[in-house]
Amino acid sequence: MKFRRSERLIDMTNYLLDHPRQLVPLTFFAERYSSAKSSISEDLAIVKETFEQRGIGTLQTVPGAAGGVKFFVKVSMDEAKPFVEDLCDLIADPERLLPGGYLYMTDILGDPRIVQNAGRIIASAYADTKIDVVMTIATKGIPLAYAVASQLNVPVVMVRRDSKVTEGPTVSINYVSGSAKRIQTMVLSKRSIKQDANVLIVDDFMKAGGTVIGMISMLEEFNAHLAGIAVLVEAEKTEDRLVDDYLSLVKLSDVDVKDKKINVHEGNYFIK
Amino acid sequence: MKFRRSERLIDMTNYLLDHPRQLVPLTFFAERYSSAKSSISEDLAIVKETFEQRGIGTLQTVPGAAGGVKFFVKVSMDEAKPFVEDLCDLIADPERLLPGGYLYMTDILGDPRIVQNAGRIIASAYADTKIDVVMTIATKGIPLAYAVASQLNVPVVMVRRDSKVTEGPTVSINYVSGSAKRIQTMVLSKRSIKQDANVLIVDDFMKAGGTVIGMISMLEEFNAHLAGIAVLVEAEKTEDRLVDDYLSLVKLSDVDVKDKKINVHEGNYFIK
Repeated sequence: MKFRRSERLIDMTNYLLDHPRQLVPLTFFAERYSSAKSSISEDLAIVKETFEQRGIGTLQTVPGAAGGVKFFVKVSMDEAKPFVEDLCDLIADPERLLPGGYLYMTDILGDPRIVQNAGRIIASAYADTKIDVVMTIATKGIPLAYAVASQLNVPVVMVRRDSKVTEGPTVSINYVSGSAKRIQTMVLSKRSIKQDANVLIVDDFMKAGGTVIGMISMLEEFNAHLAGIAVLVEAEKTEDRLVDDYLSLVKLSDVDVKDKKINVHEGNYFIK
Repeated sequence: MKFRRSERLIDMTNYLLDHPRQLVPLTFFAERYSSAKSSISEDLAIVKETFEQRGIGTLQTVPGAAGGVKFFVKVSMDEAKPFVEDLCDLIADPERLLPGGYLYMTDILGDPRIVQNAGRIIASAYADTKIDVVMTIATKGIPLAYAVASQLNVPVVMVRRDSKVTEGPTVSINYVSGSAKRIQTMVLSKRSIKQDANVLIVDDFMKAGGTVIGMISMLEEFNAHLAGIAVLVEAEKTEDRLVDDYLSLVKLSDVDVKDKKINVHEGNYFIK
């Protein structure tokens, strides 16, 4: 059965979106659609052009006999900006204020549309970085970590606060939570990260960065490498920040409990 | 600027995949591509046909002035079967055996490709069900719940074992974990579920079903309705099963610790 170009383009688009950062040989598509490689090349040129024009991502062509195409998500600054501005407005809602100046963010972190877009934006920043694993800590960062990982085509590992029987042997470390200066424990399954893996740490919120420092110590226990740190929201408290090199989409600069004012603006993603 | 049909088809495919279960008016596409509604209708007919033929999903046309199209993910049994068979083989690996007959599943639950496909299959089963929220319990079920929710275009709420300051006021209930008969606590933020919401419970693993029963009691506290229960893996121990009506992709019938044999086969998804 032969496929028309229109059908090929639709199916290719779906296939590529579903297989980011994965080399798809031209022969794969040629066989899938019983079409000549020359037609497939033309199709891919159209897909690439449209993906780039519409800000969906880009296709990288790998030449040669073992060649093919790779799809990378690539959200442009022009598209990331309005998304993050809307996110800031959402976060600035005084209804979010909780006792102690904490913010209720659970609804935002549970919204697949928001989390997926944030994941795409973060993944775009690491398009050229070698990443083998995304690491996060339970619980609230998991959806975002998972959204980033699915665009980077790598697994997620979840650090826990407590050990569970279903994790098998674990590595446990103590760390100092930055803001409260309390000693806490985190635990990671020994099977979850291979030696020399390049690890991107993703979390929903970073205050002083104590938890992130903990995760970095954990990486050292696994002889793994830190490839980057990305958070959805950072609390701007530079005096006691423990981490320098990280990416944030949103910056929370001031929470005024008395006047119910939350001061939020775009994160360092836009100034890098 | 006018768009060629090929560009429209590629961008439409991306847009529809990214907005499942959402009514997209024809006028939206007509304006997006500066094209006549008649051309858009033709485009959508091609997209629909290809989506159905390639097992991507289906487009539902809503007629009238306020009409448009809605994309639903729809994985056919023919595609779900080989995926679940591969998953069974993966789970049956004796290396997964942990003391006490537990199975290490963390790598499977951290693999975005597997979780996304499982999420699509589960979401397909609820294409015609009214669902407002997906509910899960921390930690391991979160990625799957999120994958299902993103296909159903609804938020995820996460029940926790402990209360956190960032959750605001919470509702806490006690429940009896089915297998160990221990009294446990689960907690959910009061803001997370609205009255009369239709809730799909999603979890990674179900043994006797005590945790699921706990989540159902939680729904009652919120005056919400149970719309369904779906798990990735059920342990087949029907004598003491507390829940009847659920969907499972994989059934774990027997774990023989001594002979290192794990007996896994497809779940009830395929016999409904």
